[in-house]
Amino acid sequence: MSAGPEFWVDGHPSGSLPLPDRGQEFGDGLFETLLVLRGTPQFPDHHEQRLHTGFQRLRFAGSPPALAELIAPALAAAVDHDRAALRLTLSRAAGARGYTPGGHTNHRSVLRLTPLPDMQLSPASLGLSSVALATQPALAGIKHLNRLEQVIAAAQRDEQGVDEVLTCDQLGNPVAVSAGNLFIRIGNTLSTPPVDQCGIAGTRRQLILERWAAEAGYVARETVFSLDDVRSADEVFFCNTLTGIRAVAQFEDRRWQAFPASSALQKIHTGALSTCCA
Amino acid sequence: MSAGPEFWVDGHPSGSLPLPDRGQEFGDGLFETLLVLRGTPQFPDHHEQRLHTGFQRLRFAGSPPALAELIAPALAAAVDHDRAALRLTLSRAAGARGYTPGGHTNHRSVLRLTPLPDMQLSPASLGLSSVALATQPALAGIKHLNRLEQVIAAAQRDEQGVDEVLTCDQLGNPVAVSAGNLFIRIGNTLSTPPVDQCGIAGTRRQLILERWAAEAGYVARETVFSLDDVRSADEVFFCNTLTGIRAVAQFEDRRWQAFPASSALQKIHTGALSTCCA
Repeated sequence: MSAGPEFWVDGHPSGSLPLPDRGQEFGDGLFETLLVLRGTPQFPDHHEQRLHTGFQRLRFAGSPPALAELIAPALAAAVDHDRAALRLTLSRAAGARGYTPGGHTNHRSVLRLTPLPDMQLSPASLGLSSVALATQPALAGIKHLNRLEQVIAAAQRDEQGVDEVLTCDQLGNPVAVSAGNLFIRIGNTLSTPPVDQCGIAGTRRQLILERWAAEAGYVARETVFSLDDVRSADEVFFCNTLTGIRAVAQFEDRRWQAFPASSALQKIHTGALSTCCA
Repeated sequence: MSAGPEFWVDGHPSGSLPLPDRGQEFGDGLFETLLVLRGTPQFPDHHEQRLHTGFQRLRFAGSPPALAELIAPALAAAVDHDRAALRLTLSRAAGARGYTPGGHTNHRSVLRLTPLPDMQLSPASLGLSSVALATQPALAGIKHLNRLEQVIAAAQRDEQGVDEVLTCDQLGNPVAVSAGNLFIRIGNTLSTPPVDQCGIAGTRRQLILERWAAEAGYVARETVFSLDDVRSADEVFFCNTLTGIRAVAQFEDRRWQAFPASSALQKIHTGALSTCCA
């Protein structure tokens, strides 16, 4: 069995990126990370929708490219893997020196394919990051390449020896975890913070809000809540492309033993995964 | 005359960047842009100081590398050019998939050398960017690679057909221009906004604050001021590594005809440039 390529640049296997690249210079670009099961990308429409939203928000020139065409070369190689993470990076065309984006209509795509082990994750320990996510409506929600806040939060997660860390906004209200979205359950209601000031509009968050919560018998809504609301919630969970829905077992002194909503949602998530061609 | 290389990766001439690179993936790194005159970098100590501050703030592992060693390969090539811009990008070591920075002690350097024409810039027209710079004390001041706000501001500058645009913070107070720091003069006092919540601590700003303002007979201070203070100022100017100090001739309906402070500072800046080896 061949290891196969790990990277593709503009659709061709390559271990190196031509310079200059505005992604490398300024983080001037977007990315998506897809879960791929035996070559089949999961929920590609949701990823494409966010990519296109970012494309327009960053005012990339030209037409938004089709996700399916961009990722096709890596999908062929991913057939060999039960589970893989496929990262697509789309940067603005290379240009002259300086911040000015210019009006080029070319973009550069980089694909990175990473085989994943099968994961059975137990309920998580949740820490608290000291990073207060910056308020920036111009960039909130989309998955752009300016991710130092998430990098710092992930470093704090490792330092604290927890499975994830909660990040708050400038007012001290919870927004997300370092690599995923956050939900709390109070009774029959699932709440997740808005992502119009900071944070990322995750694909699984979107699917829970528009479909899965109702399928599981819950009401889901976007709403601001406090750290005290997390501490007193009946259930806390987060979601992520690669790991799905994961319950929180512990945050500070609070412990949880029952996870009805996250268990139901994870079952729905697993059932919605597709291993045949779309 | 040979054109010479434009890029160096880890000290070697190369037009491509090995993947993965955390600068390309997350903007996880720092940069400095130096003015180089016939191979001599200008004010390297100030650039190195900011680079080292960023290195510590982003918690890069290991010891901060010496700027002189990092840029040496490009300086040799820059001897052929009267004026050149030398960009140094320092990204965190390549790592496994995901935000976690890990504890690697290697970093990657990329150099980009761009010859510059001789510039005699007239007083500038100044527009106003709609981007409100995000409050993020963890990242403010340092020159990291998450620069989408500056990219958007530079695009607005081009759209407005002005020489520069002013950017404000979340409270609507001026911070900077798209590619430089901002000063206003009221009487004998030069004021520039603090950069502890957002913005970049520019090298020329630093030199004005610590040395050049006094040499020119002015008092310089860091202080918050409003857009109305800009409109009513006796003089407005901005500063940038490559263009030095540039007066503002126009902002909205306001016109300025006399530029005593910016003229004096630009003379001091020009006089402080070095064309012999340090």
